[in-house]
Amino acid sequence: MGHDPEVAVRPHVVVIGAGFGGLAAAKRLEDEAVDVTVIDRHNYHTFQPLLYQVATAGLNTADVGYAVRGLFRRQRRVFFRKAQVTGIDLDRRRVELRDLPEVPYDHLIVAAGSRCNTFGIPGADELAFPLYTLEEAVRLRNHVISLFEAASAEPGLVAEGVLTFVVVGGGPTGVEVAGALAELVEKVFADDFHDLDVHRSRIVLVEQGDRLLAAFDEHSGTYARAALERRGVEVRTGTAVESVAVDHVVLAGGEVLHTRCLVWAAGVQAGALAQALPVARGRGGRIVVHRDLSVPGYPDVYCVGDIADIDDGSGGRLPQLAQVAIQGGRHAAEQVLRTIERRPRADFHYLDKGTMATIGRRAAVADLPIGVRLRGMPAWLAWLLLHLVYLVGVRNRVSVFINWAWNYLTWDRGPRLILRPEALPHTPIPHSDAAPRTDQAGTSA
Amino acid sequence: MGHDPEVAVRPHVVVIGAGFGGLAAAKRLEDEAVDVTVIDRHNYHTFQPLLYQVATAGLNTADVGYAVRGLFRRQRRVFFRKAQVTGIDLDRRRVELRDLPEVPYDHLIVAAGSRCNTFGIPGADELAFPLYTLEEAVRLRNHVISLFEAASAEPGLVAEGVLTFVVVGGGPTGVEVAGALAELVEKVFADDFHDLDVHRSRIVLVEQGDRLLAAFDEHSGTYARAALERRGVEVRTGTAVESVAVDHVVLAGGEVLHTRCLVWAAGVQAGALAQALPVARGRGGRIVVHRDLSVPGYPDVYCVGDIADIDDGSGGRLPQLAQVAIQGGRHAAEQVLRTIERRPRADFHYLDKGTMATIGRRAAVADLPIGVRLRGMPAWLAWLLLHLVYLVGVRNRVSVFINWAWNYLTWDRGPRLILRPEALPHTPIPHSDAAPRTDQAGTSA
Repeated sequence: MGHDPEVAVRPHVVVIGAGFGGLAAAKRLEDEAVDVTVIDRHNYHTFQPLLYQVATAGLNTADVGYAVRGLFRRQRRVFFRKAQVTGIDLDRRRVELRDLPEVPYDHLIVAAGSRCNTFGIPGADELAFPLYTLEEAVRLRNHVISLFEAASAEPGLVAEGVLTFVVVGGGPTGVEVAGALAELVEKVFADDFHDLDVHRSRIVLVEQGDRLLAAFDEHSGTYARAALERRGVEVRTGTAVESVAVDHVVLAGGEVLHTRCLVWAAGVQAGALAQALPVARGRGGRIVVHRDLSVPGYPDVYCVGDIADIDDGSGGRLPQLAQVAIQGGRHAAEQVLRTIERRPRADFHYLDKGTMATIGRRAAVADLPIGVRLRGMPAWLAWLLLHLVYLVGVRNRVSVFINWAWNYLTWDRGPRLILRPEALPHTPIPHSDAAPRTDQAGTSA
Repeated sequence: MGHDPEVAVRPHVVVIGAGFGGLAAAKRLEDEAVDVTVIDRHNYHTFQPLLYQVATAGLNTADVGYAVRGLFRRQRRVFFRKAQVTGIDLDRRRVELRDLPEVPYDHLIVAAGSRCNTFGIPGADELAFPLYTLEEAVRLRNHVISLFEAASAEPGLVAEGVLTFVVVGGGPTGVEVAGALAELVEKVFADDFHDLDVHRSRIVLVEQGDRLLAAFDEHSGTYARAALERRGVEVRTGTAVESVAVDHVVLAGGEVLHTRCLVWAAGVQAGALAQALPVARGRGGRIVVHRDLSVPGYPDVYCVGDIADIDDGSGGRLPQLAQVAIQGGRHAAEQVLRTIERRPRADFHYLDKGTMATIGRRAAVADLPIGVRLRGMPAWLAWLLLHLVYLVGVRNRVSVFINWAWNYLTWDRGPRLILRPEALPHTPIPHSDAAPRTDQAGTSA
């Protein structure tokens, strides 16, 4: 039954979320004199930076997801609960779960992540394809392949926009999805579909701002645009989406793009759990934290990662990046230990390791600290290497490496399967959250 | 648009089903002077002998599924149609598809496979977990892991049978599922679930006949039983299932087993397409064919694999085995070519290569021709090797080999993820069969 408060002598640290922030916190605590319970609505950690490769059939689901329990097999005092967090009773120190008993805590680290922000654009919540979970990645993969299958059976559908893909958002995710889709169509589907001119497919990348990769060096944005255009992607900067319908989107200015697939990579907001807490919220609904990452008024509750609004020490706020989450999770865990040991707490100092984005084979950008800017082949190799290093688990590193080598050498994509397991009849799991989740806007932990 | 009968000069061979039989036929024809269209309701070939390893988290979905189009990338006159076959107009020579235009043929090879046969046992169709498709394998995997997660959160559920797994059918599939489940629980979940005594889990293998592996040598059956019992599986021979409910099954004699997971490995029947044809049907609804595998009255229509009822030349009928399907598919393709070339047709002669089943690590049985019987480690190595050889595609062989080596060395199972992509909102595919399929009893091509 995990940590039992009746008999426990060790403090109980509960970590909400098994993303980068939550895992970093739990890993920091795994061998300390505390009981740890990690709660997540999935039974696996998702390596989000590679989700787009699952969506474009380059990687297996299990390459990018890692069972949380598998990460703590030898730490018998680390427990896991697969559950949907519905709220936190900050005064009684309990985490409330859907359909399951609440979990008491002595120290709480909230790393519940972010969710898609569609900014109230009509139709976007219902029809756009976000890319924040492994399930969403598989759903997008199913959809993309299904559209090509439909066009192959009835070529007349191409004129209706069945092979037009619109990607909204010119940040790293949007750039990566658009580039990977272009390569999937040009290099893989061109050989797959003998009775279809796949070059009639269109990939349109729509960005509201005036350039791509706004958080990067300007030359990186220019490079990314050129690299995408060389791959046949239509890049539309200074363009906003006004509304989304089943078979088209309307752009600002009234232009209509016929499409059956709109990928949403345009922005995130804090998970719904942030709204459930009686604390101050900042940009994107994020929880404003003290410099030690604790929540004002609740010194034993910390927020890290995408759900936290963190001062960067010079008046700005830290960005939503894996590195911010990882370093923040580790920092919060250390403050828990300091508190238990009655040592003074420390402020969080983020060490900027730079940002990267890949466009396609041998094409990437990397803005590293101390002004180093890589582009093209060097950036691509650096990107490959760093993602292998940061992947969780040796098995996943081996598998991803082999898949990448295979895809690179053969232009093949093994996992291009349309898989819909839950379309089959389903036996309910007693008292658990196995019921299909359709409220994507729900708490993301 | 694939083969166009208006302008075609090459005969059009349509193959229904991309299983072992259909693929063998299409592969035999791929470089001949014919147009080939392969039709399947999935966009991938399923390597059915390893489905149980997907269900028990040992292999990735893409290790066991191979995109059909990927198998014919260089054969520009081989086409693929992802579609549900609803019927065949034998007189007009047309294959009818759900929601898609019908496909005309000059020669037709029906390799639509088999589906689960629950023999009218109440509740079995709705509640049992069959294991014939990749989607069913993922569904079973989701369900098994979810049950352990539920028991971990609420240990009281164990007494209600939440960790009791009942496998019906003592043939190779039943033996393999039961053995793999036992190893998953004992070797993987025992380390995963720190707050649950997984040894309270039960795996019960129920077989109506008086021994396991009835199609094998008697000593193989005895060996399999002992090997399963050593792994903690309760083997109940001479026991039938009388009815199935959400939380229990009733055995013949009235005994009630509380369970939330009944795996159905007890029998197959011909796909529903067989019933739609105005031809004679034999055992299990299979289509009785001539010795050249053509359908009586329709010399240009062949049936191969599990959907065909084939004379074994000595008064019996050939079994439902991959080898019968592979050899039959190749034979039918050759008869198509002979017919086109106006050469006389030949009868089908099945070359028995033996049968194998694996129970767990270093435990298997192999009944080979000329009376060779292997058990234990030699049979297990033979089984591994042969399955690697017969897997479709180099990439899948490499991936399966690496996964096996990893699992063997680490007792780990990478793909133990609960993944429910289709629980998310779904955008319809125009005019295609993307609607959730719930009639499993439908045509299996």
